[in-house]
Parts: sequence; structure tokens; C-alpha cells
Amino acid sequence: MQLLKDRILKDGVVKPGNVLKVDSFLNHQMDITLINEIGKEFKSRFADCPITKILTIEASGIGIACIVAQYFDVPVVFAKKAQSINLDGEMYTTKVESFTHKKVYDVILAKKFLGPEDHVLLIDDFLANGCALLGLIDIVKKSGATLEGAGIVIEKGFQTGGKQIRDMGIRLESLAIIDSMTDTSLTFRD
Amino acid sequence: MQLLKDRILKDGVVKPGNVLKVDSFLNHQMDITLINEIGKEFKSRFADCPITKILTIEASGIGIACIVAQYFDVPVVFAKKAQSINLDGEMYTTKVESFTHKKVYDVILAKKFLGPEDHVLLIDDFLANGCALLGLIDIVKKSGATLEGAGIVIEKGFQTGGKQIRDMGIRLESLAIIDSMTDTSLTFRD
Repeated sequence: MQLLKDRILKDGVVKPGNVLKVDSFLNHQMDITLINEIGKEFKSRFADCPITKILTIEASGIGIACIVAQYFDVPVVFAKKAQSINLDGEMYTTKVESFTHKKVYDVILAKKFLGPEDHVLLIDDFLANGCALLGLIDIVKKSGATLEGAGIVIEKGFQTGGKQIRDMGIRLESLAIIDSMTDTSLTFRD
Repeated sequence: MQLLKDRILKDGVVKPGNVLKVDSFLNHQMDITLINEIGKEFKSRFADCPITKILTIEASGIGIACIVAQYFDVPVVFAKKAQSINLDGEMYTTKVESFTHKKVYDVILAKKFLGPEDHVLLIDDFLANGCALLGLIDIVKKSGATLEGAGIVIEKGFQTGGKQIRDMGIRLESLAIIDSMTDTSLTFRD
């Protein structure tokens, strides 16, 4: 998606440790106009899928998922990273290791919001080692729902998550795939 | 907002400890059609304000803020609940006590995303004791931005947050204010 790649080149900042900061438009401040264009692009790429729910994980995926959901006219469900007293009843649970925060989270989703009748599109802002997405895939499997695919805004193609998930036979659409990055250059996959 | 009140009566569930669960449409599963109506209502109520940014706090406020922001045509900025290695540079910081999780969070916002030139609308899903909203108000004060007001989806009017914030002279618009609730009844403020 050229508009997104242009924006990454313009406003993305590479930090030591292979960190790409896009916090001015994607995951701290959010450019809602751009994210609407992202929503249209995902709708175009998954137009043939009978999506009934969009599933994401808190926190930074939620806003993107909500904007994207408008183009599919379906609800969003977001998995939560810790037990809350407001979440009762039966839960799907999985574990997710966070690359950013260097710890393992329990991730939960109320069973009543995802079941065998659902056709699910996963949405998240970043894909690097794939831990968050693998956690969501595990939840979809446990629910018996049909996983139609995953839409990622930015994939770090030099980390293993994307390959691992494609090798599982899952349809993965990343709007910008970065194959290499240094302090002075970013290379996108064609 | 009658549509919202009707939905709370239809799908809200009261749990012991004055907990109102609206997780089927607002903060676990999200009904994007309803939240668009919420966005239109906030735009109508704050139509006279020259809003430049919408500020919320992760996690459940983010999706609502993103949908609402479309009606104001402004970016969303969300305050984060813990230090992340991806957040560097200068930060506004404050502390927020969570009623739900029974602990105190450090809340941070990158200074570059809020400054004296901004006119801010705060958006959140719930207002009870007001801790999250007071944290956001503190951040706006530190930034030098103009606080135009706060838009809350559901206010628990029997807790003290709403009165405290209105007594500070802040314009607070809650789309549904619950004055009392028991296992068998909910009473809204007129």
C-alpha cells in the first residue's frame, strides 16, 4: 500500500534494536484519515471472505480494528491481556510473549463472543516475531470459528512471524513489509 | 442518548460490587454501528468547540475515540498505562488508580503529541470514581492545551467522579448517567 509506505518513510523513525517507531500516526497518535484508507485496503483484499467478526488484541490494535470493521460492517472483539474482575464466565485463554515489554501475558476472550458460526479476520498494527498473532490464532482454533485470514499494517519481514504464519497456510495480508532497516534506510518488499 | 440507554437496559448486566457489564457492545465486543451513533452524538454536543485532538487512555477508550474522531476530523492520541521501550523522548506523566484492577498505573503521553496550540476533547467509555479522567485532565494541564470538555459513554452517577469533574468547571457530557442500579433495575438520570 503505497500511501502507507510513503508515510512510514516520511514519519517512521528507526531506533536501536530494530525498533521502528510509527507513534506519530499509528500507535500513540493515530491518523484516522490514514487508518480509514487502511480499512478500505483490507476490505479490498478480503472482499471475497464472509467475515462476521474482526478480532484483535489490546491495546494498539483496537483503534485500527474499529475503523477497519466499518468497511466489513461487523463487530470487533478484542482479546484482553490480563484477568479483570469485569470479565467473568467462560474464557478462551492463551499466552502471548511481548517483544516490546519483554514479558509473557495471559490473553483472554469471553467464549460468548466467538464461536463455530463465526468467520474471523484478525487485525493488528505490527507483526514481528508473530507472538500476538499466534495467540489470536490459538483463540480462533479453540473457538471453532473459521479463520479467514489476518490483516497487518506493518510486517517486519526480517523477523520470523510472517513466514511462520504463512507456512501454517494462513492467508496473511501485510500492507507494508519491511525487509531490512538501518538508521538511514528502509527497504520494503515488492 | 435514548439508543444507548435502551441498549444498556437490553444487554447490560449488573454484577455484585456495582459492576455494570456492557462487554457485549462496548468494551470487549464492540458494536461499531452503535459507536458511530455515539460519535455523531458527541459531535452534536461539542459542535461549538474548535477541537484539534481527541485524547483517551488505553485500552477500552481507544476504539471509541477512533470512531468519534471521524466526526471531528482530528487525530486521536491515547495515553499509555506503562513504560514501553518504544516510547522515548519527553513524556507527560501522571498516576491513575484503576477501580477495575485495584492498582495504580503510571500513565504517560509523549509531549510532542499535545501542546498549547491544541484544543482537546477527552473521550472514555466509563466514568465512575473519575480517576482515569482526572489523570487525562492532569496531562492536558501539563501540556498547556485548552481542555474543551470530556465525553463519556456511561457515567455511574452514584459515584463521585462526575460531580468532582463538573465542580472543577469542566464541561462533561455523559450519554447515559446511571443514578442507581440493582440486580433487577437501572435508573437513569433525566
